[in-house]
Amino acid sequence: MKFHRLGRFWGGGKLVTINNLIMNIAYFNGNFLTKDNIRISPDDRGFLFGDGIYEVMKWYGGFFFDAESHLERLKRSLSEVRITWPEADTFPPFAMELIRINKLEESQSLIYLQVTRGAAPRNHAFPDPEVQPTVYAFARKTVQTGTESVPEARVILRKDIRWSRCDIKSVSLLANTLSFQEAHERGMKECIFVRDGIITEGSRSNIFLVSDGTLYTHPESGYILSGITRKNIIRIAKESGIDVREVPFPEKDLGSIQEAFITNTSAEVTPVTAFESNKVGNGEPGPVTILIQKKFIDQINTLKG
Amino acid sequence: MKFHRLGRFWGGGKLVTINNLIMNIAYFNGNFLTKDNIRISPDDRGFLFGDGIYEVMKWYGGFFFDAESHLERLKRSLSEVRITWPEADTFPPFAMELIRINKLEESQSLIYLQVTRGAAPRNHAFPDPEVQPTVYAFARKTVQTGTESVPEARVILRKDIRWSRCDIKSVSLLANTLSFQEAHERGMKECIFVRDGIITEGSRSNIFLVSDGTLYTHPESGYILSGITRKNIIRIAKESGIDVREVPFPEKDLGSIQEAFITNTSAEVTPVTAFESNKVGNGEPGPVTILIQKKFIDQINTLKG
Repeated sequence: MKFHRLGRFWGGGKLVTINNLIMNIAYFNGNFLTKDNIRISPDDRGFLFGDGIYEVMKWYGGFFFDAESHLERLKRSLSEVRITWPEADTFPPFAMELIRINKLEESQSLIYLQVTRGAAPRNHAFPDPEVQPTVYAFARKTVQTGTESVPEARVILRKDIRWSRCDIKSVSLLANTLSFQEAHERGMKECIFVRDGIITEGSRSNIFLVSDGTLYTHPESGYILSGITRKNIIRIAKESGIDVREVPFPEKDLGSIQEAFITNTSAEVTPVTAFESNKVGNGEPGPVTILIQKKFIDQINTLKG
Repeated sequence: MKFHRLGRFWGGGKLVTINNLIMNIAYFNGNFLTKDNIRISPDDRGFLFGDGIYEVMKWYGGFFFDAESHLERLKRSLSEVRITWPEADTFPPFAMELIRINKLEESQSLIYLQVTRGAAPRNHAFPDPEVQPTVYAFARKTVQTGTESVPEARVILRKDIRWSRCDIKSVSLLANTLSFQEAHERGMKECIFVRDGIITEGSRSNIFLVSDGTLYTHPESGYILSGITRKNIIRIAKESGIDVREVPFPEKDLGSIQEAFITNTSAEVTPVTAFESNKVGNGEPGPVTILIQKKFIDQINTLKG
């Protein structure tokens, strides 16, 4: 069994085959390796400082959805934190190769990519001269759209303790993991943040609220990630004639909404049926949410051809 | 050449000797290894999420200064982020062993310790069941107190973009590195943060301000790290009869101060002589700062015996 290298960026690439069965092969600095063969240095600034960024892209058994936007956001994240990785354009091709090597062509899968500022003796200042960034990616099979057993979400609401540059998709995610874990332990699917009385987003998703037929979501700013799914949902909603307002929505007005849903790359559109013990509407996914979910899946199916 | 293990916590410990010369030996999950022999898994939550905490302790050629407080803060950090590491009390003994192995007994040195939630397939939720935390520590020789060529600091002032749990000494430090780098590139020694008009602390230090003989520093809260040096300086100042007020100090009142200094474990007390182009007082370290610096060094010398 043989695999092609995809060009000079991957020079020196080493492929691992075990009895012709290739399992769980990740990408690391130009090479395809089993995770066991990947060594992150203890000097890696990802490990020491959370000094890196990441991106997640979804494979729909034939194509990556909106790879262009993911690549664009990747480059923006790198630029905002000033990590130099001239080979960023190789992301979609090596992501494709990860799908192939791991035999995920026919599955819905996620590609996770992380780029850190590289390894250097610990110092808050950037390494000078610059060092090679650390580039790590893996593929993982995900749940097939529409087959998840609990397709709606109850969520908790918590004060947003995160930094004010949430627009950067950074790996300094301790605030997110602590908040998500709290939701998880209470049997809820997400923690929605409130900053200065305003609903911002979730620990790993954007949030949309429906009030009298109008769709509300937080405007792009340092307080939210500009989600790729968020962007596409706004487009789809507008194409469907829904009034979309990207404005701050106060927590105190949550009682007036009829519907809510969260979005992200992996779970797409998930109806929010309750904020803690307070039902949203009648506690069932509402018509705007269902319409948007359907339109999103229609787009995927159209792209599948 | 032989080294003693310090007890059962270090069972399985492996020592690396190269031609009887032992260099740059770090501590990793119970073993003493060269850095090259330490492999952080790409699944480590320190690498993927900045999901870990750290501690830095200073060795003064004979003792660790206030090891009790560092150990106490370590345990508090672990508790706040809910990382279970029952062997936290082994930190001072293996720190001592790192000093010995690296032949730093006679030098001023730093011990850096990092504990992450361990390695598990990427998921915002904590691993369930729990996994072993990753424990990594290294020793590094530092500048001898009082011998640094530029013992004062000019600093920049920037909006505090960090999270609101700065009391946790977490490794999710991207905001700190970006801010420190900006100061560094402008030839300044620290970035001092301003949150809602209030001076909080630096990217890697606490800050004290002197106005009319009174010493001001931000009160303990989620907006600052409760520095061990900060705590000792407050004690020393009070013992010296200086009025110390732990209250919010507005940025707009900076024009009224005569002195400022920053504190941390590695650099101890560093006079701040200018905020960007605005001199503090006459641009020289002032009498309160010099007194406190001297008293701090006196304490160290007393402990040296």
